[in-house]
Amino acid sequence: MLAQAIELYQQRVDIVLKNKLEQLDDCAPELKDAMTYGALMGGKRIRPFLVYAIGQMLKVPLEKLDNAAAAIECIHAYSLIHDDLPAMDDDDLRRGKPTVHIAFNEAQAILAGDALQSLAFELMTESQADTSPTQQLHMVKVLAKAAGYQGMCGGQAIDLAATNKAIDLAQLTQLHNKKTGALISCAVELAIILADASPVERAHLAQFSHALGLAFQVQDDILDVTVSTQELGKPQGSDEQANKSTFPKLLGLAAAQAQATELVQQALSALEELPYNTQLIADFARYIITRRL
Amino acid sequence: MLAQAIELYQQRVDIVLKNKLEQLDDCAPELKDAMTYGALMGGKRIRPFLVYAIGQMLKVPLEKLDNAAAAIECIHAYSLIHDDLPAMDDDDLRRGKPTVHIAFNEAQAILAGDALQSLAFELMTESQADTSPTQQLHMVKVLAKAAGYQGMCGGQAIDLAATNKAIDLAQLTQLHNKKTGALISCAVELAIILADASPVERAHLAQFSHALGLAFQVQDDILDVTVSTQELGKPQGSDEQANKSTFPKLLGLAAAQAQATELVQQALSALEELPYNTQLIADFARYIITRRL
Repeated sequence: MLAQAIELYQQRVDIVLKNKLEQLDDCAPELKDAMTYGALMGGKRIRPFLVYAIGQMLKVPLEKLDNAAAAIECIHAYSLIHDDLPAMDDDDLRRGKPTVHIAFNEAQAILAGDALQSLAFELMTESQADTSPTQQLHMVKVLAKAAGYQGMCGGQAIDLAATNKAIDLAQLTQLHNKKTGALISCAVELAIILADASPVERAHLAQFSHALGLAFQVQDDILDVTVSTQELGKPQGSDEQANKSTFPKLLGLAAAQAQATELVQQALSALEELPYNTQLIADFARYIITRRL
Repeated sequence: MLAQAIELYQQRVDIVLKNKLEQLDDCAPELKDAMTYGALMGGKRIRPFLVYAIGQMLKVPLEKLDNAAAAIECIHAYSLIHDDLPAMDDDDLRRGKPTVHIAFNEAQAILAGDALQSLAFELMTESQADTSPTQQLHMVKVLAKAAGYQGMCGGQAIDLAATNKAIDLAQLTQLHNKKTGALISCAVELAIILADASPVERAHLAQFSHALGLAFQVQDDILDVTVSTQELGKPQGSDEQANKSTFPKLLGLAAAQAQATELVQQALSALEELPYNTQLIADFARYIITRRL
């Protein structure tokens, strides 16, 4: 059931993204190709999954969730394109395929990222069944904060500054709360806004997404040292090689695994407070720390 | 009077930007510094000027124009930071100062641009006296389109593709309508949205901004070959050196100058149709082709 839902939502958001990108005129065909390549490289589509699954749990029709799901994936896709650049993490491979600046060139990769960020905000303004301007504007605000200095960009800057330096667990946690957590929490918040959920429900879901976001990153760090290059689609031990602080490095592998389990437990406890069928979301939270990819 | 207004609005938007940037926490101080350096490097503030001056002409209070003026300057500032990168135009100097990737480093420059784009959209969502969610959402849409593939990013991609190639006047015009024109038209449109101007007024102002945007770029090309490196704040003839098509190259210098004059004449004719005091804006349009910077 979880696997089916993941596949369903993955396909759904890919169609929304593909349609939107195909609608762009052909004034700059190479840029359009680079944007499409970067946005449709595959991947788990975890953020759109959360928009769709939490939204559905809160009784929001799927059609009303499409633009939010596509917009948050545009932000995630742009961040991967820019993070992979030689001046940043300098990665040639992502999901087993050449990264955008390898498949195209650096200039197109920078521009493709920039244009995907703009596209995310444009998607948020497109009228969608039963969504009020106030809701749409609220979503723009939440997405802009999660993407910018207070969120993802700030997290990436802290990450760069922390490379080759010893940082402690509190700093590593702050880094990941911003770099990965902000956008994961944002996905949940977008669904909440579209559902007009109550403040109490918002609070429980915020606890859920906060714990889930961190669990996701701890597991990512664990996978980087335990899974083979081929399975990972990028070189094994690349964090180690880049001399980055990771949870396994700071805590040891076993303690990092225990930490991930504890975080998922926190996420599940928050879900239990909600008067909805939370089974799919709970299964997803468990999957986050059992996944191999 | 024009010089005073330019200075007044320049100072005003700088204060709005400075306040907004100072309010950011210090989680990533180097990124905050790079964003501030890039956003407050000085410059003509032509886009904020248009927001303020057109808005005031249409009787919009200055306070209501601040966020739109600051947001469009954030987009412009981010585009300069990314355009200057080694993989793009590879410029070390801008306005006589080291560009962001020289003063900081490439990674910080990429992130500063990214975070300034997010900040632009965040600014658009901040509540401002008497601005409705519908107006704010409309501004987000207009800004996202002007900044993205259909506008500025698309224009920069066409520019990169056209380097070292012969392109004709129609292609050069399309390039600049997107690369520079889209954001200049957007500045005017933001003021129009905040003023709730009539469709007829919108149409005249769209004609005005379209002609002005192109005149601005023709004059930029002219300045690149006629003004000294010192006065320009960047190397003279850098377009020529980068083997870019320019209006003087395609038309000859005298014909390019005549073209700029004709475009400003078109802009002034559009203004004459408006039932407002258009003197400041008209002076500004004339200044666009007499400026040396």
